[in-house]
Amino acid sequence: MAQQIADRKDVDFVLFDQLNVDSLSKFDQFGEFNRKTIEMIVSEARTLAIKEMLPTMKDGDETGCKFENGTVTAPESFKRVWNLFKEGEWVSTHVSPEWGGQGMPHCVSIAAGDYFMGANFSFMMYPGLTNGAASLIENFGTDKLKKLFLHKMNSGEWTGTMLLTEPEAGSDVGRLTSTAVKNDDGTYSISGNKIFISSGEHDLSDNIIHPVLARIEGAPAGTKGISLFLVPKIWVNDDGSMGEPNDVVCTGIEEKMGIHGNATASLTLGGKGKCRGYLLGEENKGMRAMFLMMNGARLHTGAQGFACASASYLNAVNYARERIQGRHLNDSAKHDAPAVPIIQHPDVRRMLLTMKSYVEGMRSLLYWVSMLIDKSHLGSDEEKAKAQALVDYLTPICKGYVTDRASEMCNLGMQVYGGYGYIKEYPQEQYVRDCRITQIYEGTNGIQAMDLLARKTVMDGGKAMMILAGEMQATIEKAKAIEALKPLAEKLEPMLKKLGDVAMFLGKNMMEGKVLNAFAHAYGFMDIVGDTVMAWLLLWRAETAARLQAEGKRKKDEKFFEGQIKSADFFISTILPLTKGRIQVIMDNCSAAVDIDEECFGGK
Amino acid sequence: MAQQIADRKDVDFVLFDQLNVDSLSKFDQFGEFNRKTIEMIVSEARTLAIKEMLPTMKDGDETGCKFENGTVTAPESFKRVWNLFKEGEWVSTHVSPEWGGQGMPHCVSIAAGDYFMGANFSFMMYPGLTNGAASLIENFGTDKLKKLFLHKMNSGEWTGTMLLTEPEAGSDVGRLTSTAVKNDDGTYSISGNKIFISSGEHDLSDNIIHPVLARIEGAPAGTKGISLFLVPKIWVNDDGSMGEPNDVVCTGIEEKMGIHGNATASLTLGGKGKCRGYLLGEENKGMRAMFLMMNGARLHTGAQGFACASASYLNAVNYARERIQGRHLNDSAKHDAPAVPIIQHPDVRRMLLTMKSYVEGMRSLLYWVSMLIDKSHLGSDEEKAKAQALVDYLTPICKGYVTDRASEMCNLGMQVYGGYGYIKEYPQEQYVRDCRITQIYEGTNGIQAMDLLARKTVMDGGKAMMILAGEMQATIEKAKAIEALKPLAEKLEPMLKKLGDVAMFLGKNMMEGKVLNAFAHAYGFMDIVGDTVMAWLLLWRAETAARLQAEGKRKKDEKFFEGQIKSADFFISTILPLTKGRIQVIMDNCSAAVDIDEECFGGK
Repeated sequence: MAQQIADRKDVDFVLFDQLNVDSLSKFDQFGEFNRKTIEMIVSEARTLAIKEMLPTMKDGDETGCKFENGTVTAPESFKRVWNLFKEGEWVSTHVSPEWGGQGMPHCVSIAAGDYFMGANFSFMMYPGLTNGAASLIENFGTDKLKKLFLHKMNSGEWTGTMLLTEPEAGSDVGRLTSTAVKNDDGTYSISGNKIFISSGEHDLSDNIIHPVLARIEGAPAGTKGISLFLVPKIWVNDDGSMGEPNDVVCTGIEEKMGIHGNATASLTLGGKGKCRGYLLGEENKGMRAMFLMMNGARLHTGAQGFACASASYLNAVNYARERIQGRHLNDSAKHDAPAVPIIQHPDVRRMLLTMKSYVEGMRSLLYWVSMLIDKSHLGSDEEKAKAQALVDYLTPICKGYVTDRASEMCNLGMQVYGGYGYIKEYPQEQYVRDCRITQIYEGTNGIQAMDLLARKTVMDGGKAMMILAGEMQATIEKAKAIEALKPLAEKLEPMLKKLGDVAMFLGKNMMEGKVLNAFAHAYGFMDIVGDTVMAWLLLWRAETAARLQAEGKRKKDEKFFEGQIKSADFFISTILPLTKGRIQVIMDNCSAAVDIDEECFGGK
Repeated sequence: MAQQIADRKDVDFVLFDQLNVDSLSKFDQFGEFNRKTIEMIVSEARTLAIKEMLPTMKDGDETGCKFENGTVTAPESFKRVWNLFKEGEWVSTHVSPEWGGQGMPHCVSIAAGDYFMGANFSFMMYPGLTNGAASLIENFGTDKLKKLFLHKMNSGEWTGTMLLTEPEAGSDVGRLTSTAVKNDDGTYSISGNKIFISSGEHDLSDNIIHPVLARIEGAPAGTKGISLFLVPKIWVNDDGSMGEPNDVVCTGIEEKMGIHGNATASLTLGGKGKCRGYLLGEENKGMRAMFLMMNGARLHTGAQGFACASASYLNAVNYARERIQGRHLNDSAKHDAPAVPIIQHPDVRRMLLTMKSYVEGMRSLLYWVSMLIDKSHLGSDEEKAKAQALVDYLTPICKGYVTDRASEMCNLGMQVYGGYGYIKEYPQEQYVRDCRITQIYEGTNGIQAMDLLARKTVMDGGKAMMILAGEMQATIEKAKAIEALKPLAEKLEPMLKKLGDVAMFLGKNMMEGKVLNAFAHAYGFMDIVGDTVMAWLLLWRAETAARLQAEGKRKKDEKFFEGQIKSADFFISTILPLTKGRIQVIMDNCSAAVDIDEECFGGK
């Protein structure tokens, strides 16, 4: 099978050489996930993705979802694949078997997800949102709710959503106005209008389970008065049988730039005064529950964006090997020199190596953070706490930084194709359009940057950042001991101190009341942390590759290992000098964006 | 009328305060283009654009062009606007009245074009390509051809195209295989397959005039054997009447990411052996003719991309003033604080000021280069030569750098809208999609970077670059004399020397045979020159604004002037440190992209 979507060699390298994910099998919970099993899982996911899902990607884009009289039809080609996906038990890979999942480590599940999401992003939003909704029930639902809903959702028989946004309450969730009134039987009557609901209505499953944020009558204003409810599209009787349709009406779906295979629905709840829901968790504690799911969703969003970039890269490499155009530049004077594959042109190589190094760095980041999620439940309390601190710290990087760079990489992947990149006959332009939403939803990337700076760095007193710096320093020490990597390690090392300096500087500004000024540089700070983390992960890869090279055992991977060192060299040499520029910008503390009078922007 | 598409105050500032374009009226040729006339022209263009063209932008995108049995139907809404456009005599504003044009200076025509292209990019491709084709006839056609075609084309009665690309000859034009055989009557029989032909087939005009690159039997291989022909869709008799349809068949149109209102056609010439054309210019000199048109087309492409960014910026500013979401960050502790317009949030201001400064800098660049085109035909030989040298040097910046940044700005303009940016109810996502083609067509931006480095800098011996540096130095001196601008001028000044150093360094590498290595950094070099030029143009603007402020006469423009100084401060303080990083990258001379073994890229 051709290398498509995700380079299998690279996936295995991260799983087994860089992260040793099979080491988790020493814990009882993951006892069965030895290397052989993991390899088999990835192989099966890859086959399903390439053979069955990828061929439906274009249909999902072109046919899209159809809205008529309150119902939504998903693309026809998705239906067969949805059945295969359910039959393969892929819907809830990392969920506990107690609730119908496969109990895989997150770091294995994400490798399978790489293939699935790169094969058909909008299709994968159906199980993705189902996972999120089910995790809310698993964490906050009563035993009754768990029994009623979890197995059906985790098998894919029913799907899930998340009803958060309202027309006037997007990023500012606290302003939502949907209401809930307690009924005599303990359920709640819900009413409100929700928009931008992914998978909000469709015909892939018999029922759709909506977690809904709403405000119980008399609750405090703002986020402290928000509660979480569970509202099934079709009511589920206490014996598990399906009851009457609930009062949830789809009033329309959005026409979007991409992800056409998944309906972005507007839903009216309780328009006839008959929408019923269960309280999920405690009254007025809905936001806390929400955040738990949202952190998972943010990591998932990073993985979605990344999968587009990974697939776009492989397409670009494969295309650049085949597309013949132009003489080799060394032969530019020879008019009869043959045309060569464009992979031989330096500027095409610059684009490809840029894509390669970002894709590799992002893969390592997302897999590593997934493994940290697993570790946050394993081992000593100290180990768990350390893993959790890193997960929390890196979540905005996995969402904000990764999706920004993923979009850039998809655009490069399109550029490699030249004019062919712009036409729908090739997949590159769809990756650009699909990927673009990841920078916006689940908290815009501007919000991720604020989260990283304020909550995760300053309010945390820099503790998590120090743990991260410790991890980086350890790799730098190892790399310094390898002749070929010493110069790279020495270029990265001073960045750690600079990172601390810039965090201190911004923190001081915030403490001294220059809050606006600090936040005007939050985005730059996210770029700086992201770039440094990328550089480190690529050095870690290079160090791993150099070690395996020195062992001399895997001759067939020789070129792959060499490529790891090139990626690290390229990124550290060509990106880090720009990162230093970004640090300079913050330390120079330009305040123009804050000072400028609103009037000066013009317009109106 | 609301400020849409292009900020009128900014357009006037560049035209009259920064560039004094009305000074061209001292030359006989432009005697009638005094300030009052220019203002009237811009006002009329603006009204037509906002009231008539902008409302058709979405229809152009959604309806698109329809292909059926060899004919293409343009969006219905375009037809009325095309008539208005022709009636207003907008098709050939800068063409000499001798051939039916308005004889406007280029620097006036581009201001009108700002509004038109930002209002409906794909509509404006029809007159844009017509201009290009007509300029070939004007420059290389016989008197007979000029009389037969020019007035009809310049009035918009007939439209034009450019038939260059073939499936195996895109960037590498020299490989094209279309052929031409001379007939007894002096015409040529043409045959070949051309693809990616914008405006290639449609029903807006009675005839379509195709300049075609083809190879006369027995001509040398490569670019030296290419000739240019004129092939009308409907043959035109010597008395100007329409004859038989020519053997030009549209075999299909592309489904694209954007610019749906303009058909990208595949055309088969001479499929029945009956395609006739006129030779345009000399045999085997087609490429030289082509390049003349292509330089104009490249500047035009920059203006297309820019117009998207300008419109996206104004939409974003207007939206950010109106969209209420989230508390002011100074009130983040007060839970009952009211929500504010998002323009008050620092990260939104960062995005808006980034857009503002790039849009302003790009407008100054494009208008200035347009004025240099005018000047290259006026005044002393020395003045003409200097103007031409600057036009040549800056053409790849206007195309490559500008369209890259324009796409980035459109993406920012989408991001300011949050979720609303991704849906088709708002225009932001269309600007992203339409703008994206400008980085690809008329020579990919990678080709622009190679042109800038090799042809325009190294082969030129740095002469044009020195002229440009002289212009920059003059502004720096003036700015240094103004207290508020002195620190900015002092930050920009060292960049001039660095620019020279990096050009020398790359030139030396090329001379010493390290051609691949030098070209691997060509793109970075384009970024560096572009950034520095932007910074300079913004300083020039700030210096102009500060001078007018000091005069104290235009109180109503006080905030606008203040905004000019903020843009310069923001760009120089937050972008130039990154530019310095880019210079460092080149001087460090990382060769990973060249050295890496093809195998290491993975894939296959």
